[in-house]
Amino acid sequence: MGTSSSPAHDSSAHRSETLAVVGGTGPQGKGLAYRFAAAGRRVIIGSRSAERAAETAAEITERTGSARISGETNEIACAAADIVVLAVPFSGHSGLVSELAPVLDGKIVVSCVNPLGFDKLGPYGLTVEDGSAAEEAQRLVPGARLVGAFHHLSAVALWGDSDVLSHEDVLVVGDDEMAKVVVGNLAAHITGRPGIDAGALRLARQLEPLTSVLISVNKRHKVTAGIRIAGLAHV
Amino acid sequence: MGTSSSPAHDSSAHRSETLAVVGGTGPQGKGLAYRFAAAGRRVIIGSRSAERAAETAAEITERTGSARISGETNEIACAAADIVVLAVPFSGHSGLVSELAPVLDGKIVVSCVNPLGFDKLGPYGLTVEDGSAAEEAQRLVPGARLVGAFHHLSAVALWGDSDVLSHEDVLVVGDDEMAKVVVGNLAAHITGRPGIDAGALRLARQLEPLTSVLISVNKRHKVTAGIRIAGLAHV
Repeated sequence: MGTSSSPAHDSSAHRSETLAVVGGTGPQGKGLAYRFAAAGRRVIIGSRSAERAAETAAEITERTGSARISGETNEIACAAADIVVLAVPFSGHSGLVSELAPVLDGKIVVSCVNPLGFDKLGPYGLTVEDGSAAEEAQRLVPGARLVGAFHHLSAVALWGDSDVLSHEDVLVVGDDEMAKVVVGNLAAHITGRPGIDAGALRLARQLEPLTSVLISVNKRHKVTAGIRIAGLAHV
Repeated sequence: MGTSSSPAHDSSAHRSETLAVVGGTGPQGKGLAYRFAAAGRRVIIGSRSAERAAETAAEITERTGSARISGETNEIACAAADIVVLAVPFSGHSGLVSELAPVLDGKIVVSCVNPLGFDKLGPYGLTVEDGSAAEEAQRLVPGARLVGAFHHLSAVALWGDSDVLSHEDVLVVGDDEMAKVVVGNLAAHITGRPGIDAGALRLARQLEPLTSVLISVNKRHKVTAGIRIAGLAHV
């Protein structure tokens, strides 16, 4: 976690942290891992298959030139990481998080899981018993420092050619203030500025299904829409 | 509704429409009524008290110079209107909409109702049996042409001095495509460009409680936050 005297906004202070991206072979996880690796972070791609994880890591190494990215099973990736990003489909989420609970305990766990359904009317937010996927993970791993973030960045944009996705904001929610600062600084690797602290973890109930609105806008307008918070000049 | 040959984006084609703002003496309703009146629209402020409605109308007349704004009871306002904006607290929403059902039937009804709760952790979205306030109104008045819009514009900004709130977007949801176009054009009076069609009415389940995230951002960062959709250059 760097030295305690390092300013929180100096990302170089945190370069020794290792990030694991669970579901790192999927489009969202791969895109996030690419951005973190491109920023010089140490990243371990996690997957059910260590072989597929290694393939994705090799692809990102080839693109970024970073030697600080590797692939492992989800369990090994999490065990070796300081910060774990959950970038998995909601289907199977609770089973996977339960399995990984021993290696998530005590760590900063970032959920960018979007529980969505699709039918003839388009995308919609699923009802989640715990309120949100992030809260479900918190219930399953009470000792984890849960943060919700990165829900609205499109996989296409993340893997795309723009150096900085400066037109988008990352909204960060959680009940652990220090963990939110760390994750907010991760966001700066992607958008060029820290994520926006949006409040308590339970507001993940709003952030997760908001993705259904963005997908709906994309379909109607043939765009890749993102969220920007207006009026933040004073932050 | 203007002549059928008028382009949808030509707001002058709709100047003959009368708007009623139910709850027009509250901050959100008053702010919207002010913006519509300033754009030359015919607006009737609705309230439980005709006297308070007339007072708010007089205040807006004084500010805008428009003689096309008046105040009435909610029922009279709705009966005289082509388009009704529901700008009321969620508390009491179902009772009020039920009462007004006969004068809402067949009309474009715009819900900007935000079912929110507040506790020590801050604001949060209430659970609504119908999914959203907009869907509740649709159930209570099946013949109304329900549209959800204007959830995220702050009352302070609406009543403020900026001519155009160009840094914000209005997201518009509904199952009546033509009604969404009409309401999208109303949004142009406020933000300088049409609202963004975001899909089916049920997505009001996401737009309404998203306001809790904005309020949370406001409290944490001492700002007046709004929503902007990034990546829409191609619309």
